Amino acid sequence: MSDLDLQRFNVGIDLALEAKELAESGGNGPVPGVLSEVTDDDGIKITRLDITTEEGSRIMGKMIGHYVTFEVPELRKQDTGLQDRVATKLAQEFAGFLERIGVGKAANVLIVGLGNWNVTPDALGPIVVENTLVTRHFFELMPNEVAPGYRNVSAIAPGVLGITGIESSDIVQGIVDRSKPDLIIAIDALASKALERVNTTIQIADTGIHPGSGIGNKRRGLTKDILGVPVVAIGVPTVLYASTIVSNSIDLLREHLMRHAGQADGFMGLLDSIDENERLQLVREALGPLGHDLLVTPKEIDQFIEDIANIVASGLNAALHEAVDKTNVAAYTH
Amino acid sequence: MSDLDLQRFNVGIDLALEAKELAESGGNGPVPGVLSEVTDDDGIKITRLDITTEEGSRIMGKMIGHYVTFEVPELRKQDTGLQDRVATKLAQEFAGFLERIGVGKAANVLIVGLGNWNVTPDALGPIVVENTLVTRHFFELMPNEVAPGYRNVSAIAPGVLGITGIESSDIVQGIVDRSKPDLIIAIDALASKALERVNTTIQIADTGIHPGSGIGNKRRGLTKDILGVPVVAIGVPTVLYASTIVSNSIDLLREHLMRHAGQADGFMGLLDSIDENERLQLVREALGPLGHDLLVTPKEIDQFIEDIANIVASGLNAALHEAVDKTNVAAYTH
Amino acid sequence: MSDLDLQRFNVGIDLALEAKELAESGGNGPVPGVLSEVTDDDGIKITRLDITTEEGSRIMGKMIGHYVTFEVPELRKQDTGLQDRVATKLAQEFAGFLERIGVGKAANVLIVGLGNWNVTPDALGPIVVENTLVTRHFFELMPNEVAPGYRNVSAIAPGVLGITGIESSDIVQGIVDRSKPDLIIAIDALASKALERVNTTIQIADTGIHPGSGIGNKRRGLTKDILGVPVVAIGVPTVLYASTIVSNSIDLLREHLMRHAGQADGFMGLLDSIDENERLQLVREALGPLGHDLLVTPKEIDQFIEDIANIVASGLNAALHEAVDKTNVAAYTH
Amino acid sequence: MSDLDLQRFNVGIDLALEAKELAESGGNGPVPGVLSEVTDDDGIKITRLDITTEEGSRIMGKMIGHYVTFEVPELRKQDTGLQDRVATKLAQEFAGFLERIGVGKAANVLIVGLGNWNVTPDALGPIVVENTLVTRHFFELMPNEVAPGYRNVSAIAPGVLGITGIESSDIVQGIVDRSKPDLIIAIDALASKALERVNTTIQIADTGIHPGSGIGNKRRGLTKDILGVPVVAIGVPTVLYASTIVSNSIDLLREHLMRHAGQADGFMGLLDSIDENERLQLVREALGPLGHDLLVTPKEIDQFIEDIANIVASGLNAALHEAVDKTNVAAYTH
Repeated sequence: MSDLDLQRFNVGIDLALEAKELAESGGNGPVPGVLSEVTDDDGIKITRLDITTEEGSRIMGKMIGHYVTFEVPELRKQDTGLQDRVATKLAQEFAGFLERIGVGKAANVLIVGLGNWNVTPDALGPIVVENTLVTRHFFELMPNEVAPGYRNVSAIAPGVLGITGIESSDIVQGIVDRSKPDLIIAIDALASKALERVNTTIQIADTGIHPGSGIGNKRRGLTKDILGVPVVAIGVPTVLYASTIVSNSIDLLREHLMRHAGQADGFMGLLDSIDENERLQLVREALGPLGHDLLVTPKEIDQFIEDIANIVASGLNAALHEAVDKTNVAAYTH
Repeated sequence: MSDLDLQRFNVGIDLALEAKELAESGGNGPVPGVLSEVTDDDGIKITRLDITTEEGSRIMGKMIGHYVTFEVPELRKQDTGLQDRVATKLAQEFAGFLERIGVGKAANVLIVGLGNWNVTPDALGPIVVENTLVTRHFFELMPNEVAPGYRNVSAIAPGVLGITGIESSDIVQGIVDRSKPDLIIAIDALASKALERVNTTIQIADTGIHPGSGIGNKRRGLTKDILGVPVVAIGVPTVLYASTIVSNSIDLLREHLMRHAGQADGFMGLLDSIDENERLQLVREALGPLGHDLLVTPKEIDQFIEDIANIVASGLNAALHEAVDKTNVAAYTH
Repeated sequence: MSDLDLQRFNVGIDLALEAKELAESGGNGPVPGVLSEVTDDDGIKITRLDITTEEGSRIMGKMIGHYVTFEVPELRKQDTGLQDRVATKLAQEFAGFLERIGVGKAANVLIVGLGNWNVTPDALGPIVVENTLVTRHFFELMPNEVAPGYRNVSAIAPGVLGITGIESSDIVQGIVDRSKPDLIIAIDALASKALERVNTTIQIADTGIHPGSGIGNKRRGLTKDILGVPVVAIGVPTVLYASTIVSNSIDLLREHLMRHAGQADGFMGLLDSIDENERLQLVREALGPLGHDLLVTPKEIDQFIEDIANIVASGLNAALHEAVDKTNVAAYTH
Repeated sequence: MSDLDLQRFNVGIDLALEAKELAESGGNGPVPGVLSEVTDDDGIKITRLDITTEEGSRIMGKMIGHYVTFEVPELRKQDTGLQDRVATKLAQEFAGFLERIGVGKAANVLIVGLGNWNVTPDALGPIVVENTLVTRHFFELMPNEVAPGYRNVSAIAPGVLGITGIESSDIVQGIVDRSKPDLIIAIDALASKALERVNTTIQIADTGIHPGSGIGNKRRGLTKDILGVPVVAIGVPTVLYASTIVSNSIDLLREHLMRHAGQADGFMGLLDSIDENERLQLVREALGPLGHDLLVTPKEIDQFIEDIANIVASGLNAALHEAVDKTNVAAYTH
């Protein structure tokens, strides 16, 4: 069960941003077929990144598509003023994103909150669903009484495989078949490569959610190919592998030593000779045999998740319903 | 939203047991077409009640079908020994119930936990789902490795209309279409007519879950007719209308006075003359204009729900999987 | 354990408002020694009631002192705009109340959140404590760096006797001895006589918290006599006895019948002849032997408690610290 | 506030076990003045370690005293059978520990659950308190009716400085002054140096709880010197610093390279030349400027804390009350 659960986190482990950093870290300069634009507004950094060609997709290891990333390093400081600003910006950016990918103002939306209610860092999706302004039932039951400025929105938290025994993808497809939305917005907690991104970063992408491709992986994703409906994914890194921290550290020390090594030839060879097995062995020693696969999260995760889920829900509510004031979005969410 | 939610509670508000008591209260003796059998084992009273004819169904105001009710007045006393005994008896009784209605040992089961995670007395279904032993994913992903004695079981908590914007019935039907179970077991919190039954009573019925039939009610139930799969409902009264308490009290005082009234004719007329409007007026005065529609629940509901959900989940796990020891069922549930 | 817990609720079961209604219900007109003043501002009714003489105290069955009651019938409707208005008014009223009873702006305050974290309708006090702006540690650890406009405030949730084995009063006295506050503000959940007051009413009183006086009751209260420090109590009815609903109903029906009875003498005697034992018997029949002592609460208690605790905490934060903006108090509370 | 909170975790960051490993890691053999004994019973490793001399204390950096550590690597696997075995062993070991340090069977005990209810990995103490069998109120209110085999036990969760504004030590001292226990048992969540110890290790020590000794640290601990009553501490590592993981990794890589370096002199110097500033710089680079002080915890912390708190509470209940069956301790705890 936990293996399957970990696998879910493998899915989409890389933020497009992290993929780009990695691709460019070799010193090869900009990746062909990848356009990006950055704005920074008083602590809220927004990167709009488009992967436009197969080559760019291949180099990045990410699907062709549009990616928007919010980075707000101070977001863990529980500053409600900043949270409100982020929610407001998210609403504006998300509304623009939908327009850019051709989703009309009347499109029916199904919000899917992936994850497990009972595992705090994995509860982002269900908490967002809980705070979402849903209207579909009003459109169904009393269509003539729905005020203008509201869109048909529904929401579901399908649970995780270990609790339901059914793939989230299957549950969502069943609901899509019955409720016929025009667009799916899937919210998910992600694993990051960098601790500083955990609970400070929000990624929007029109590529859907793709399962990992490990051996024997029969799991299905949430994508337009599978569901027949476009899927926009909103991801927030809420955990990272402890082993990632160790690996990053080893890399940094190697780089550090290399920079200072100068002519010590034998030494360079020594560092290069740390092969994958030795590396894995070091990780195991650093974390203990039971720790090396552990996903970790900041101690204050309960509050962080609550805060960021409210930001995402507020942003969505304002982006999806024209009647919701986009200049003060927080008021509409509990 | 809350109106719709109340409506959900109206659905199945009557325990078959309460219907029978009502039908027989006029002094007409046993209801034709209704068979019942009662056992009482050291504080656990089990009533097996079958409605076998249209006439019985009409008089009772309940569907033709099999009903089993557990009444355990002491269940609110937080006695873990008693809880274990109830779970064990429930497992045995439920296994027998499935056999009686012709559900085979290999039948695939989908457990549906109705209700709202965030409203404690309404969270019974979701908590049961969380504690259910699901296996479907093992059957799907590694069919050759499933140990004998386990049945294919999946589970879903579809949420409530106010959170999802989609009828639970539609969500379930979508999942049924995709996952093809042979049987649905739907868990739901009910409203009772009697405070003493709240959180002390468990009803099993093979009639599914029927929505209320109020004016303009377009809501759909969970029944074999609708879903194409038999539906066994497990219901636990967790709330009652405050107005029910008032009405019961008025009735009791009337009866009391009548019994003692003797020849005072004018008086009899007076009591009879309390019509429905006056009665409603009295209820409103007793509860206040805002209180008369309130569903209330005992103060200790958090603990009661946890306890009874564990009993139901333990009982289901043992009843559904032969490999689970039916003599000590609690050990398998968290 | 639960007996003791019920007793806690007996303490202060009567809102001063309810006591006054009762005292005046006999048609005797205003109670001597009791002054009261009512304002009503768009759905927020505020009653300032002073019991000034021993006679008034005796008739009312309440201590001499100042009482302020907020009645906001719509408070259960989850209207965040109304909640903000109530919090703002509460801040202003409470600041005035402190002034009226002679508490200076520099007085150190200890907030005591009575009740049980794990029993939702009893968790008001602990939730308020959690959302209170405490500053005492800054005054202790870095006195020169505390910004002007902040008062020395500390807070404690002492737990309940069944969890701690120690009287809350003893715990608080120990803390008072060590931390030397000038004023205690004690927050507590109360039992009401009227369902419509549950979760819609807030009472402030400078009389402290008095335990019930049942047989063998050795329990101590939170009062100036006991603690040596003035105690302001803030109480919110969050539960009521089911038996109260029944009793109220019986009374109403009696009154109703009496009004219509006219000359039917035998009948009047009949109604009068319902003595206490018969009445208790009727209550038991209406609720079942196990139900007649049950405290009940509205089904939506989780949300109601959260809302009203935020109102109280926001109001306190703004009333106690001049630096907190009293025109928009909600922003400072999580 | 969070700084102060982190400081709390600094307190007692080292398990005695980790201190001993560190002291012996230089290859100097056993530490003088430190006796230790290890038993291993089917996955439960128990180390009894006594620091008997000032020299031992100085080398270890730990107080003179008795330490018992349970290490159960599989404890994170949610195996209820193993959990029951650990609770049973803990009860037996703890009863022996009390005897060894001279605590009699009639000694009154105050259990202090340190930590913050609302921060999951910090909630160990409060959850244990909630599941503790307290009896002091029965001894106070109905002394003649307490069954034999029960000891006078009370319990308090004093909260954290950021919530209360009062030092836990001051709160506890106030309660001690009022309730006069003979022994304090303080439960606390700790920070570990090793991820594999997180949520798998329980330490008992008769040294009380000592605050860190950082510059300007005015905080007080829970010790016999301060409180006038012996203090036994039960600590469970539930978090670790992300920076610890990085530092451990750097150390391991250094050792690894050193082992393989052979004669490469310049290289040895290079590794040795990584001074504290460079090291801190590396840690910052690995974690990001905002991450290097973060305490992290496994993703599944909600369940782990629940499990281990139940073990500790069950163990305490059986150890403290002779009437509780020490061969099946779990049954007494919710």
